Amino acid sequence: MAYEPQKSDNFTFGLWTMGNPGRDPFGEPVRKGFTPVEMVQELGKLGAYGVNFHDNDLVPFGSSAAEQDRIVAEFKTALSDNGMTVPMATTNLFGHPVFKDGAFTSNDSRVRAFALQKVMRSMDLGYDLGARVYVFWGGREGAEVDAGKDAVTAIARMRDGMNFLCEYSKSQGYDYKFALEAKPNEPRGDIYLPTTGAMLGFIATLAYPEMVGVNPEVAHETISGLNFYHAVAQAVDAGKLFHVDLNGQKVGRFDQDLRFGQEDAKNAFFLVRLLESYGFTGMKHFDAHALRTSDRADVIEFAKGCMRTYLILKEKAKQFDADPVVQEILAHLNTSGDAESDTLLDGGFTKEKGDALKSRVFDVDALTAKSLPYEKLDQRTFEILHGVA
Amino acid sequence: MAYEPQKSDNFTFGLWTMGNPGRDPFGEPVRKGFTPVEMVQELGKLGAYGVNFHDNDLVPFGSSAAEQDRIVAEFKTALSDNGMTVPMATTNLFGHPVFKDGAFTSNDSRVRAFALQKVMRSMDLGYDLGARVYVFWGGREGAEVDAGKDAVTAIARMRDGMNFLCEYSKSQGYDYKFALEAKPNEPRGDIYLPTTGAMLGFIATLAYPEMVGVNPEVAHETISGLNFYHAVAQAVDAGKLFHVDLNGQKVGRFDQDLRFGQEDAKNAFFLVRLLESYGFTGMKHFDAHALRTSDRADVIEFAKGCMRTYLILKEKAKQFDADPVVQEILAHLNTSGDAESDTLLDGGFTKEKGDALKSRVFDVDALTAKSLPYEKLDQRTFEILHGVA
Amino acid sequence: MAYEPQKSDNFTFGLWTMGNPGRDPFGEPVRKGFTPVEMVQELGKLGAYGVNFHDNDLVPFGSSAAEQDRIVAEFKTALSDNGMTVPMATTNLFGHPVFKDGAFTSNDSRVRAFALQKVMRSMDLGYDLGARVYVFWGGREGAEVDAGKDAVTAIARMRDGMNFLCEYSKSQGYDYKFALEAKPNEPRGDIYLPTTGAMLGFIATLAYPEMVGVNPEVAHETISGLNFYHAVAQAVDAGKLFHVDLNGQKVGRFDQDLRFGQEDAKNAFFLVRLLESYGFTGMKHFDAHALRTSDRADVIEFAKGCMRTYLILKEKAKQFDADPVVQEILAHLNTSGDAESDTLLDGGFTKEKGDALKSRVFDVDALTAKSLPYEKLDQRTFEILHGVA
Amino acid sequence: MAYEPQKSDNFTFGLWTMGNPGRDPFGEPVRKGFTPVEMVQELGKLGAYGVNFHDNDLVPFGSSAAEQDRIVAEFKTALSDNGMTVPMATTNLFGHPVFKDGAFTSNDSRVRAFALQKVMRSMDLGYDLGARVYVFWGGREGAEVDAGKDAVTAIARMRDGMNFLCEYSKSQGYDYKFALEAKPNEPRGDIYLPTTGAMLGFIATLAYPEMVGVNPEVAHETISGLNFYHAVAQAVDAGKLFHVDLNGQKVGRFDQDLRFGQEDAKNAFFLVRLLESYGFTGMKHFDAHALRTSDRADVIEFAKGCMRTYLILKEKAKQFDADPVVQEILAHLNTSGDAESDTLLDGGFTKEKGDALKSRVFDVDALTAKSLPYEKLDQRTFEILHGVA
Repeated sequence: MAYEPQKSDNFTFGLWTMGNPGRDPFGEPVRKGFTPVEMVQELGKLGAYGVNFHDNDLVPFGSSAAEQDRIVAEFKTALSDNGMTVPMATTNLFGHPVFKDGAFTSNDSRVRAFALQKVMRSMDLGYDLGARVYVFWGGREGAEVDAGKDAVTAIARMRDGMNFLCEYSKSQGYDYKFALEAKPNEPRGDIYLPTTGAMLGFIATLAYPEMVGVNPEVAHETISGLNFYHAVAQAVDAGKLFHVDLNGQKVGRFDQDLRFGQEDAKNAFFLVRLLESYGFTGMKHFDAHALRTSDRADVIEFAKGCMRTYLILKEKAKQFDADPVVQEILAHLNTSGDAESDTLLDGGFTKEKGDALKSRVFDVDALTAKSLPYEKLDQRTFEILHGVA
Repeated sequence: MAYEPQKSDNFTFGLWTMGNPGRDPFGEPVRKGFTPVEMVQELGKLGAYGVNFHDNDLVPFGSSAAEQDRIVAEFKTALSDNGMTVPMATTNLFGHPVFKDGAFTSNDSRVRAFALQKVMRSMDLGYDLGARVYVFWGGREGAEVDAGKDAVTAIARMRDGMNFLCEYSKSQGYDYKFALEAKPNEPRGDIYLPTTGAMLGFIATLAYPEMVGVNPEVAHETISGLNFYHAVAQAVDAGKLFHVDLNGQKVGRFDQDLRFGQEDAKNAFFLVRLLESYGFTGMKHFDAHALRTSDRADVIEFAKGCMRTYLILKEKAKQFDADPVVQEILAHLNTSGDAESDTLLDGGFTKEKGDALKSRVFDVDALTAKSLPYEKLDQRTFEILHGVA
Repeated sequence: MAYEPQKSDNFTFGLWTMGNPGRDPFGEPVRKGFTPVEMVQELGKLGAYGVNFHDNDLVPFGSSAAEQDRIVAEFKTALSDNGMTVPMATTNLFGHPVFKDGAFTSNDSRVRAFALQKVMRSMDLGYDLGARVYVFWGGREGAEVDAGKDAVTAIARMRDGMNFLCEYSKSQGYDYKFALEAKPNEPRGDIYLPTTGAMLGFIATLAYPEMVGVNPEVAHETISGLNFYHAVAQAVDAGKLFHVDLNGQKVGRFDQDLRFGQEDAKNAFFLVRLLESYGFTGMKHFDAHALRTSDRADVIEFAKGCMRTYLILKEKAKQFDADPVVQEILAHLNTSGDAESDTLLDGGFTKEKGDALKSRVFDVDALTAKSLPYEKLDQRTFEILHGVA
Repeated sequence: MAYEPQKSDNFTFGLWTMGNPGRDPFGEPVRKGFTPVEMVQELGKLGAYGVNFHDNDLVPFGSSAAEQDRIVAEFKTALSDNGMTVPMATTNLFGHPVFKDGAFTSNDSRVRAFALQKVMRSMDLGYDLGARVYVFWGGREGAEVDAGKDAVTAIARMRDGMNFLCEYSKSQGYDYKFALEAKPNEPRGDIYLPTTGAMLGFIATLAYPEMVGVNPEVAHETISGLNFYHAVAQAVDAGKLFHVDLNGQKVGRFDQDLRFGQEDAKNAFFLVRLLESYGFTGMKHFDAHALRTSDRADVIEFAKGCMRTYLILKEKAKQFDADPVVQEILAHLNTSGDAESDTLLDGGFTKEKGDALKSRVFDVDALTAKSLPYEKLDQRTFEILHGVA
């Protein structure tokens, strides 16, 4: 079992991942990050499908058109030479001080306008490079001082921005799908629309909800201690899983962006099983970076590890689904007790069914008595996951 | 300023709040909880508007029709005698062992059918008593062992249940508004649709989304460390704030259901200001209980304190909005930098506006230079809140 | 590889673990808990070493002396018949309403005196049954309202209680070791001395610190998101690991007391490796309970699972330590760069060494350049743990 | 009531606080930080007592002796001109990449030796500038990959380092008090000795425990959701509160270092009341920084706000202690029920007292019945704090 990534695995990395130089709030850079061209070369060798970028990962803020053209040409050559693609693009609306109090939710209309311009230009760039999913992560769209910004107004401004950009995409003939990425906090004390669920709620208020889905990220949901597998399941249920950001994170602390599977391998397992069993065809994007202790050789190990871990868990999912002990327990759990209930529930409400159900006499003790061997099942899962089943 | 509750304040309490006898996972009851009739009497004197209940708060599980009739008649008399109402009702789908693995999301169709029956009957009871908002809190709709229940299926079953009950409500001619209440965990390890945002996303997938809104609860959102004011703001923005549960909670621990304002008074302040400034006309429901150290006299203090705190914060909100220092800062913050941006942003996208915006030259340094005196504003807020401004 | 527990594994269970009937704050009991005698029988068959108890797990609160004698006699017979022991005992100072505001830290001297009496009697009982470790978990020693109890005074009262009981143990000729168990919250909003570290600090202020150590619990440290392996390492370093409570817990929520290894198997692995490699000879106590969904058969699976998981992780630890890739990386990491530094650091400070060190010229760039392949190491750990290395 | 800081208030600021330029992991600097000389000037005007520094806050890493001399001379002049002092100093053992895997706990003896050298030199510098408290915050003394560093060894190395430096301090005739500052995580995934309690436990294992105390920080304890007032109370109880770091933080997220009182003003109130009522004579150090949205004028507001908030809460503490409602409740709570209990508990254990206590008959119902009006007390506290009592 080689766990060698294939193009068909749809594994991608952001340019900011291997590009990360290991700077943090308490310390200076520790290594030379991989340049975009270097990343394309290295990831091509490792079997990744493609790379993603924020505009300024590729083209520095304030570059001239000529500089941009030169950079993009060189990058396209590297992509082509290494059999790599750019399936997703996004905008950096958080790094420059102009966005220090948000982009779409800034109280200053000039900043909101500038943010829209930056996205439009970045959408053009991304489309040109092949991206068909456009991610929005509003890192600065939040507050530490709720006195300063009305949250209802902020959310309305976020919607105005999204609607404007949906129209822009349509007017350009771009067939972008937009994927909204939630995060509860950091760099802001609190970020608006802090969970994947909140983003799904927000999408329902947009002018073109069919264009817009979500990009859930392991670390972001996990910071709040929420079950990431559940969050992605809701997105799948809603038909809104357009992209997924895979990494690792411990609950209740700063954004770690660890290697996929580094923490809570069990939840990662259920996530992989979900993606595989529901036939997710989008990109599996490793939005992570190597530890600050890593040098460039260890950054390569990090990238390989992300992909290997996914493939290991994918194999575990197959083994789990085929395991006779698991199968027996799941069959027991999922056997409905009676056809009458199935009939009443199937196909929705009618007056007759409602009447029948309301007057039915249930044997509550019998229902209560059904065994639910979850300890046994979870222990079996542990043993399959740890290779001793 | 007496901070005396008025009927027009729309303050309500669940029967389980003053009824709570102070039992917890590590200890036995410490006091006799107030009976429904006692609560109606006491709260009537204190100026509350009404009480809410789960079916089994009023009518014990398994009561005969005759017992129910007797209990309801006595309760109606108490309501009438004390000038109290029942604006909201809900169903206990978590206390009895039959629901130990969920109600609407149980793998067992009999349990799902029984849950629907229990809700239908409870809706009848609630409607008869005057309730026009029906709350759903699915305390057992979750898992500790994700191997045992497919989360996508679970969410689909939740939807089936809600759709069925919407139809039932319509078929009965009830004009109920449904309010979904999220909680991230406890009593389950993880509960599906764990945040108010997730509920808003779920509502968008229902057959009758217009009938369904949310009932955000301070404690539930706060367990995950999310900003409750932001969560309610999203509900307001979406037109979905049908009810609100007020209490107190420390982040990242068991469900405390503390007195409103007991923790994070600042967030409570922004919440009250939001409810007041956006004209929320629904019920302000104190879904809290007195500490286990309290005797019955202190339970009364608890109930008074919930309402007093709301009224104190309401007054603070007025003072804040009238404060000249605050006004000056907010005026500065909200002054848009230029008419050109306003024009571009107002009224949505057109091809012409898009072109104009994309080619506009922004003075980024000027935008960046605008001062944002949030420290000053937050300090002023602190001083207003603490009565020293 | 059978993962069959042996007596030499020193696995114990509290009577409250399999005895738990599945009640929680939102629901009623779901099963008949195992009685003390049943537990001794079942655990004897499964290979456990012994059981532990709070006084009232065995002898109900308020029992007469005659009742106690009868219960104890029956229990001793069961122990003897099943080859089981009682290595640890403790006191229930949290269940009865008299302790609703604490025992040793109550503001009421009568409650403090009553608590001491209860412990003395329970120490007698435990000693008679063979216990030589006595655990203190002060579940109610905390507050929700810091206005009501001075925290400095509370800690001083805790010390007075511990000193009193140390003296009592000595006066009786008991050779008890006391093991203090910390928890950050639940059932109190905040519990004093909330971490294993805080307990170690507190021990240093006692009259007989040599008699007193700690009983760290996975779930309790994990509620606060602290690294349990680190906490136990500190206890080992201090020579204070007298007992250990093994279970599982997700960060930042109510006390779950899950099956050992159910959450964060990686941290559990480092814990097991620590206990094994540092030759911990105390009891490995599974202070956990089956899920509320479990029936009695599944409770047995739960108990078996706790022990199997430990043994699986113990085997993984051996494999990890023997793995050539791991060995190579650790050898690289632990190779000191030069003898001069070793010499300066070995054996502590002298004036000469201080002078030499202060004036030494370091090649900081060379030190910085040393590679730290932690990504590679952690990925290898993942693969060993998951049985694919 | 002016809330004007006085020298006697012992308010200090780290050079890194107003010096912070507003850089974070997602964005570039937004302002010119105040230089050391500027800070001394500004804070002198505002009424602060002094400033603290890490060696490299004042003297950049790698400066020559001549450069250091020039910088220090200029700084001394500024101190003298502005009536400011340097009561505390510390070492930056986290910023330079050489410390990327720790300083005292590095696996590399050269790094450990270099760290000691850096501290010795910084102790010399600090002493020369008047510092008599020396703080240790081991920001990099932790791990993300527990496979790479044995935690027991790491803690032992931490002790070796502290012992070495205690000896150095003594050998130089410095009368430094060392104050250890804990933090649970960030920048490392987990930091060893993560809480103030853990530091107190660690101190007990040192060669010169009497020289070493703690420097608790609001934000650091709060990240883990621990009650900071309780943590400081334990330090006070142990006689180990040598310094305190005041700021603000929301639970369960990245290190925010907010303005003192910006979050959880109630806990800040109990902290201030503790410091004032127990006569803390050390420095009240605001280890905070202005928001990234702030410009230099708002940084001044931030610094003023920290001090004003302390003084406001100090006044509230006086009001609380004098309040007749509070006094009445506290008197009720603290009245012991009987002299017999007091006598038994006073002065510790004797055989006679033990016997008497063990056989005493308690009226448990009477003890249980004592009222504990904590709801009333907490509501009163709320009203005093919010200026409406």
